[in-house]
Amino acid sequence: MPNRLAYLGPAGTHTEQACITYDGGAACIPFATIPLVAAAVDMGRADEGMVPIENSVGGSVSATLDLLIHDSTLFIRRELVLPIKHFLLARRGADISEIKVIFSHPQALEQCRVYLAEHFAQAEAVASMSTAAAVEEMLKRGGEAAAIGTERAGVLYDTDILARGIEDRPNNMTRFVVLAPKDSPRTGEDKTSICFSFDEDAPGILHSVLDEFARRGINLTKIESRPTREELGRYIFLVDLEGHREDTLLSEALEGVRAQVSLLKVFGSYPRHSDSR
Amino acid sequence: MPNRLAYLGPAGTHTEQACITYDGGAACIPFATIPLVAAAVDMGRADEGMVPIENSVGGSVSATLDLLIHDSTLFIRRELVLPIKHFLLARRGADISEIKVIFSHPQALEQCRVYLAEHFAQAEAVASMSTAAAVEEMLKRGGEAAAIGTERAGVLYDTDILARGIEDRPNNMTRFVVLAPKDSPRTGEDKTSICFSFDEDAPGILHSVLDEFARRGINLTKIESRPTREELGRYIFLVDLEGHREDTLLSEALEGVRAQVSLLKVFGSYPRHSDSR
Repeated sequence: MPNRLAYLGPAGTHTEQACITYDGGAACIPFATIPLVAAAVDMGRADEGMVPIENSVGGSVSATLDLLIHDSTLFIRRELVLPIKHFLLARRGADISEIKVIFSHPQALEQCRVYLAEHFAQAEAVASMSTAAAVEEMLKRGGEAAAIGTERAGVLYDTDILARGIEDRPNNMTRFVVLAPKDSPRTGEDKTSICFSFDEDAPGILHSVLDEFARRGINLTKIESRPTREELGRYIFLVDLEGHREDTLLSEALEGVRAQVSLLKVFGSYPRHSDSR
Repeated sequence: MPNRLAYLGPAGTHTEQACITYDGGAACIPFATIPLVAAAVDMGRADEGMVPIENSVGGSVSATLDLLIHDSTLFIRRELVLPIKHFLLARRGADISEIKVIFSHPQALEQCRVYLAEHFAQAEAVASMSTAAAVEEMLKRGGEAAAIGTERAGVLYDTDILARGIEDRPNNMTRFVVLAPKDSPRTGEDKTSICFSFDEDAPGILHSVLDEFARRGINLTKIESRPTREELGRYIFLVDLEGHREDTLLSEALEGVRAQVSLLKVFGSYPRHSDSR
């Protein structure tokens, strides 16, 4: 039976492209939001779930971080890093000089700001819920509209491609994670993602927690903070570490952290993407 | 002459409400994006600029952080913390049972998700570029549409209010900052915002930088990381500290940091908002 892989849809988004890269034989099932992807795995409607977690230009995907922190007991089983290319799509036969409206997700519009200012200074930018929804709205509007979307959306919706690779920064990359009921066994080239928080903020607690890793030579590959949702100025810290949670040193460090914090959640250990650091 | 205060517009957004709270006598000038607000101050078209920097539910406003890091030499002169209340607005005389479409900025739609699921499970959510643009689009669509926006947008656009305070989390707060050519003098109750980054990642550099503050008893009120935009996995760290950059201990600590990092930028020192920590 093929792997049933839930993902943040609709079809034609970058997340669907990540699914195909991860497991070309999987049965891919789109869901409208990141929490619905996790719920599908929780309830056994899918074996694994694919969601974006971080973009090299936009930063972290808050909905995924908040899901891992607050609303899910799923683990991170894998990570994937994919280049993000934006395409300018239009109805078949559309004339690029006639384009007056450009649809896309606000983040995609933002990532193509320089291109749009140079080539479509007079066109109106209109927000859509996803890059794929933008293509649907563009097709409804007709020949005066274009949409910023993926190459795959161009194929799925049978559009013309007016321009390729219109993102302002050529090294635009997104990191995706595969969520599952279990994380991955040791491979020797692993990463571990955790979050922690404190009940009160003494000047040195964060420093003292990081000391557990620093004095064992364990490298942090990421540190991030998210609001607790309860009070402005109180944070949950998210840290990615080199190593597997079953490695002796990392396991000792995590015990040292647990003794100092009010919350410690291990999101999982998983093989490190070969191009990520 | 009144203070000329540029802000992230249009009129009727939460940022305009922050301007009125900050300086009721100011001449408020709306701009379409956060970089345009900063450019207006840079070029002398405004004395100060008001932008959101952090929300208690959504987290940091990336565009403001990226502006401070990469694209501006302006300082943070003040901070303000305001409660965020969302209102459901509709054309005068609209019938709440007839609503089929709800416009708003994706973040406002997200912040009212539980309310919308309970009361408007069948309605279509449509993305707009701002909560104020949502109200304009709602008015164009007619009586079957509603918009999530501010109370002030209801006044400016003369709409009905169908529901008040529909945000899922009652303690939804946003921190705004006032950008200006200079920061603020010492008051004794100050905060200082900085960012720093390293050329290479040795296991202990972040820990060693934070040690400069910890061993002087200087409290961190926030730590955040943003991508450098150059490479996935390389970060710029943003830290808020208690104290003024001219305080002896903090000044010494910043010199200690400067000796260890490849980039250190002080965004400014400013009076701490009395309710923020």
